Amino acid sequence: MKQYEHPPADAFELTAILHALADPYRLSVVRRLAQAQPQPCAPLQAGRPKSSTSHHFMVLRKAGIVRTEVVGTTHMNSLRDAELEARFPGLLASVLKAAAMTPLEACVPAAS
Amino acid sequence: MKQYEHPPADAFELTAILHALADPYRLSVVRRLAQAQPQPCAPLQAGRPKSSTSHHFMVLRKAGIVRTEVVGTTHMNSLRDAELEARFPGLLASVLKAAAMTPLEACVPAAS
Repeated sequence: MKQYEHPPADAFELTAILHALADPYRLSVVRRLAQAQPQPCAPLQAGRPKSSTSHHFMVLRKAGIVRTEVVGTTHMNSLRDAELEARFPGLLASVLKAAAMTPLEACVPAAS
Repeated sequence: MKQYEHPPADAFELTAILHALADPYRLSVVRRLAQAQPQPCAPLQAGRPKSSTSHHFMVLRKAGIVRTEVVGTTHMNSLRDAELEARFPGLLASVLKAAAMTPLEACVPAAS
């Protein structure tokens, strides 16, 4: 069964985290997970092709923002928010607060 | 005399700001300006060619992070920190705090 790789918290890099959050779709995924987690991939896809979402989730995992666990036939995603907070206090919270100024429904771009 | 364009604060976009800060060189420029500003370009170039730094400063200006003013023959750069704080409270401070975990000297990459 496929398992995903996740970096340890002490390997998190600030610029990789900022890069991962700098994409509107990836940021929308993080916002949705901050509202409810864990979540399977399907409701987070926002109509995008699987190849596109797979890439974006890989970027989020590599940066240490998202953890994807295989549960039966479902891939469940959650934020590594406690680890991020321990490593870079206040960072994710300030980004989520800034992002919240735009309604979530308005900021998910069309599939591309 | 050349003058640079700067977006108004209400046009700042979160993802553009995160993208601008996600590059190690650009982040090092922001950190140096947070320590002392305004500064001309030369001490911020870190040995990079002018074409490279020009591009990076343009990204920082377009995101609303840096203001470049032409003063005589010198281009003086400063952070738009008050405007950023008003628009996205705590965001720049949390990024600078996270960045400060790495010594500034160690995080400026070689010119590329």
